Amino acid sequence: MPKIAVLRWGHRPQRDARLTTHVALTARALGASGLILVDVEDQKLKETVKKVVDSWGGSFFFEMGTPWRKVVKEWKARGGIVVHLTAYGENIETNDVLQRIRACGEDILVIVGSQRVPREFFSESVSDFNVAIGNQPHSECASLAVFLDRFFEGKELTKNYEKAQIRIIPQKRGKKIVENY
Amino acid sequence: MPKIAVLRWGHRPQRDARLTTHVALTARALGASGLILVDVEDQKLKETVKKVVDSWGGSFFFEMGTPWRKVVKEWKARGGIVVHLTAYGENIETNDVLQRIRACGEDILVIVGSQRVPREFFSESVSDFNVAIGNQPHSECASLAVFLDRFFEGKELTKNYEKAQIRIIPQKRGKKIVENY
Repeated sequence: MPKIAVLRWGHRPQRDARLTTHVALTARALGASGLILVDVEDQKLKETVKKVVDSWGGSFFFEMGTPWRKVVKEWKARGGIVVHLTAYGENIETNDVLQRIRACGEDILVIVGSQRVPREFFSESVSDFNVAIGNQPHSECASLAVFLDRFFEGKELTKNYEKAQIRIIPQKRGKKIVENY
Repeated sequence: MPKIAVLRWGHRPQRDARLTTHVALTARALGASGLILVDVEDQKLKETVKKVVDSWGGSFFFEMGTPWRKVVKEWKARGGIVVHLTAYGENIETNDVLQRIRACGEDILVIVGSQRVPREFFSESVSDFNVAIGNQPHSECASLAVFLDRFFEGKELTKNYEKAQIRIIPQKRGKKIVENY
C-alpha cells in the first residue's frame, strides 16, 4: 500500500493553530504517515503533535519550515505523486480520479491549503491530480478525512498504534481506556 | 432517506469561531440538513453560514441559543434518534453500528462536541449510539465528514444545490466557476 504524507500550506501560527492541529491529528488518525508544515515553523504545534504520538503510539513524522516548492520538488524526484485537495478539482464521487491515483501505485503527497492557494498548485509542475471532496466550500480537515478514508477503504480506522501509552477500548456507552498496557 | 441535523456542543464564540465554521460548512457540503449551535449565540457565525447558503445555494438551516437538553428532548419526542460522535464509542469500521443506525430508519441528530463533553452524552437519556471514527483522538470536523460520507454513501457529494448564485465546474486543472447562472 502506498504511503501518504500531508503537506499543510498557508499555516499562520497564531490564527491557524487549532485548525492545523486538527489537520495533523486527522492525518495521523486516518492513516497518513506524517505532516509537513511548509514555509513556517510552529514549535507549539510540533509539541502538540509529539505529545499525541508519545501517548497514543504509532509512528507519525512532523516536519516544518521547508519551502513548499522544495518539498514538492524532492517528493517528485523520489517518484512520488502529488494530490491537491481543492473544491475546484475533479469530484471524487462523480468520476474515476481515485482509481487513477491508485493506479499510479506511488506514494502520495496530499496538499491541503486554504481558500487562497497559489495558482501554481493547479499546474502540472505541482499537482498530478486536483481532487474535490464535492465542489462546495467546506473544510480542508473534512476533505483530508474523506480522502484518506476512501483511499485506505476504512482500514486506517482499525490500525494498531505501536508503543501506545494509552488506548481506548471501544464501548457502546461510557469511556474505557487502558494506560501503560 | 432520513435527514441528519448536527448539534454543535461547547462552542466558545471567540476561540472556536473558525472550527465551528468548518463544522457548519462540512455539515452543509456533506449532506446534513442544518446545524444547531446549542447553549450560545454567535451572530457572526450565523452570518457566515447565511452568506455561504445565499451564494452556494440549497437549503441549510442554522439555529442557535437553545439549551442542548431541550434540543435533544424535542428531537427524541419527534421520533428522531441521536448519534454521539466520540473517540470512545463503537468503531464505525470494526462493527455494524452504521447498519444499526440505518435500520432505525429515523432522522438523526449527530452530536459533535470537544474533548470534555458531559458524561451524560454517553447515557441512554441522550445518545442512542456512541460512534467512533476510529478510536484515536483527532477532530470533530473530520469525524463528522467521514460519518456523513459513509451514511450517505458518497451521494451527498453529487447533490444539486438549488438557487445557487455561484457554482464550480469541476476541472482537472485550474478554477472554473459559473456565477448567477
